[in-house]
Amino acid sequence: MSKATLQVAGVSYPVFVGTDAAIETRLRSLVAGRQVLVVSDQNVAPTHLAPVSESFRAAADVRTLILPPGERTKSLEFFRAIIDDLAVAAYHRDAMLVALGGGVINDLGGFAAACYQRGIRWLAVPTTLLAQVDASLGGKTAINHPAAKNLIGAFHDPVAVWVQPERLATLPEREYRAGLAEVVKYGLGFDADFFAWLEEHASQLLARDAAVLFEALISSIRLKLEVVAADPNEHGDRALLNLGHTLGHAIETALGHGTWAHGEAVAVGLMAAAELSAARARLDPEAPRRLRALLHRFCLPTALPAEANDAALAEALALDKKIAEGRLRFVGLQGIGRAAVWRDVGVPELRRAIVGVRRSG
Amino acid sequence: MSKATLQVAGVSYPVFVGTDAAIETRLRSLVAGRQVLVVSDQNVAPTHLAPVSESFRAAADVRTLILPPGERTKSLEFFRAIIDDLAVAAYHRDAMLVALGGGVINDLGGFAAACYQRGIRWLAVPTTLLAQVDASLGGKTAINHPAAKNLIGAFHDPVAVWVQPERLATLPEREYRAGLAEVVKYGLGFDADFFAWLEEHASQLLARDAAVLFEALISSIRLKLEVVAADPNEHGDRALLNLGHTLGHAIETALGHGTWAHGEAVAVGLMAAAELSAARARLDPEAPRRLRALLHRFCLPTALPAEANDAALAEALALDKKIAEGRLRFVGLQGIGRAAVWRDVGVPELRRAIVGVRRSG
Repeated sequence: MSKATLQVAGVSYPVFVGTDAAIETRLRSLVAGRQVLVVSDQNVAPTHLAPVSESFRAAADVRTLILPPGERTKSLEFFRAIIDDLAVAAYHRDAMLVALGGGVINDLGGFAAACYQRGIRWLAVPTTLLAQVDASLGGKTAINHPAAKNLIGAFHDPVAVWVQPERLATLPEREYRAGLAEVVKYGLGFDADFFAWLEEHASQLLARDAAVLFEALISSIRLKLEVVAADPNEHGDRALLNLGHTLGHAIETALGHGTWAHGEAVAVGLMAAAELSAARARLDPEAPRRLRALLHRFCLPTALPAEANDAALAEALALDKKIAEGRLRFVGLQGIGRAAVWRDVGVPELRRAIVGVRRSG
Repeated sequence: MSKATLQVAGVSYPVFVGTDAAIETRLRSLVAGRQVLVVSDQNVAPTHLAPVSESFRAAADVRTLILPPGERTKSLEFFRAIIDDLAVAAYHRDAMLVALGGGVINDLGGFAAACYQRGIRWLAVPTTLLAQVDASLGGKTAINHPAAKNLIGAFHDPVAVWVQPERLATLPEREYRAGLAEVVKYGLGFDADFFAWLEEHASQLLARDAAVLFEALISSIRLKLEVVAADPNEHGDRALLNLGHTLGHAIETALGHGTWAHGEAVAVGLMAAAELSAARARLDPEAPRRLRALLHRFCLPTALPAEANDAALAEALALDKKIAEGRLRFVGLQGIGRAAVWRDVGVPELRRAIVGVRRSG
């Protein structure tokens, strides 16, 4: 089976992709002799918890905590549940938290690790495509607040990320496809060759062909880590990773969270970003056509459904937290593979781009 | 009026001591154009809130939030109250939180700033002696958990600390004296000359003589910042600042929190650390005698009251979170001004030291 260890200059932790004896030995050495708490959810635990916790049990004292699945778990209430569990078992500062699951468990578990005793070590073991190529990378942890997603959080790097492509075999089809939107984002925004490679291998990737999936994971992870390494605390270029997300978040908010998967909203957000960039003549008009074709091959939406309300969209855009000192930072495209932050894009122009994809999708 | 700006290499923020036009101008430039939330408590606000918030109002949009006083406010509940207030007013990432108060407001406000939007700027304006020489310095923020004090927190440096000695004029006598225990700690553990200076100026310091108090603040702040600069995240020598605190915390726990002021328990903890060090012949026997005399001049306790329960003390010591990988790290003295971490001190030896000061106090 393919395997790789990605270590990017400027990022403190390795990302292990795949499973073999050498990787398992390194992981066991990270947990050896520590108190370990594996946090997971009721969807993930039946399939994935036993192999992971057994693998560590040889080296460490392992406890497990299984939470309800879904976005509502990413709350102060379940943050507290994890802290209580660590406290009741008298976990010390040298303890290790393992976040085994998708983006929710990653963000919540990482945030609990960031705060318990002012920060304990944690290991990310993402089990969804979205978490493997995005949520588990870059040290951003958070919980939601009624006023906004990810409003309460911390930057707290894991000691390692363990990406196992084989865990994706059991991922529901819609969730897998939604994760592909983030993969497309890395090609569209950061690497034209990777974008072309995705066009070539779309069918195999959709079919979860092991070799193609492995390559897609490696490229996506490396691209994300390179952006993060240049700007770990998101003061500058890390904002480029929000390509498609300003509009994506507005779409999620306008439709009501949970109606569309995050990746589905991002797909439309990418489409609108490409159209806006082409309308400004910064991007070849051929590019939005290629993007639309690729998203369609992944069965991802490229236009808003009719029921999305324009007024709700406008309000969501105005409230977006990626507004710095009152100015919106919009991530546009100067070419395929060349994302750029623009500071002169106003809310009306964004609305036009969204309405544009509504008609043309 | 005396004033100084302390900037220690390796510490990112300045500490302004005193008040003058130049300091106020620098502070206003830090908040200029930002959304500002001043967090304070019901004891501090009547005296101190108006001058501080008025000073900033010329430069920024200022809101205030006044919380109940006391240790119980350092909780997840009031953490959430601050986050709610920031969220309701739609504070952005470039907002500034001002923590105006003692250690509770500092630790709670700093922690809310650490987590809101994954970290916003904050300014510490400590109004108690303890907060001016200890809590506001070093970037440690936290809230309490039923299982332990400061169990949930973060390292999050303020953009500046503003220490105004004149704010101590209204501090209750017992609280002022308790703060002096931390001042004594800096001399005892880190600077023999400062310790001798304290012996010389004890009466003026107790009387809050402005010039002497100013000198004591400057020396204490500089000593703390120098230790913090060498080890910001407490992986090594920063543990030296726990001189007197392993025993102090055990005493607070055994007596029941709130019975003694933190500084009073630290005074006895310092005494016991000195006695333990002398019993090991690492410290001249004259040193504990000098320490006892100095603490007595500050009207601080040097022995446990009879009602402290030995079994409760032993249990509190065993649970102390300053146990790394199962081993206790005890801060002993190799001389006045020369604190050192010892890893071979067991709980029985600690108990003997505490019982020792019970008899000899």
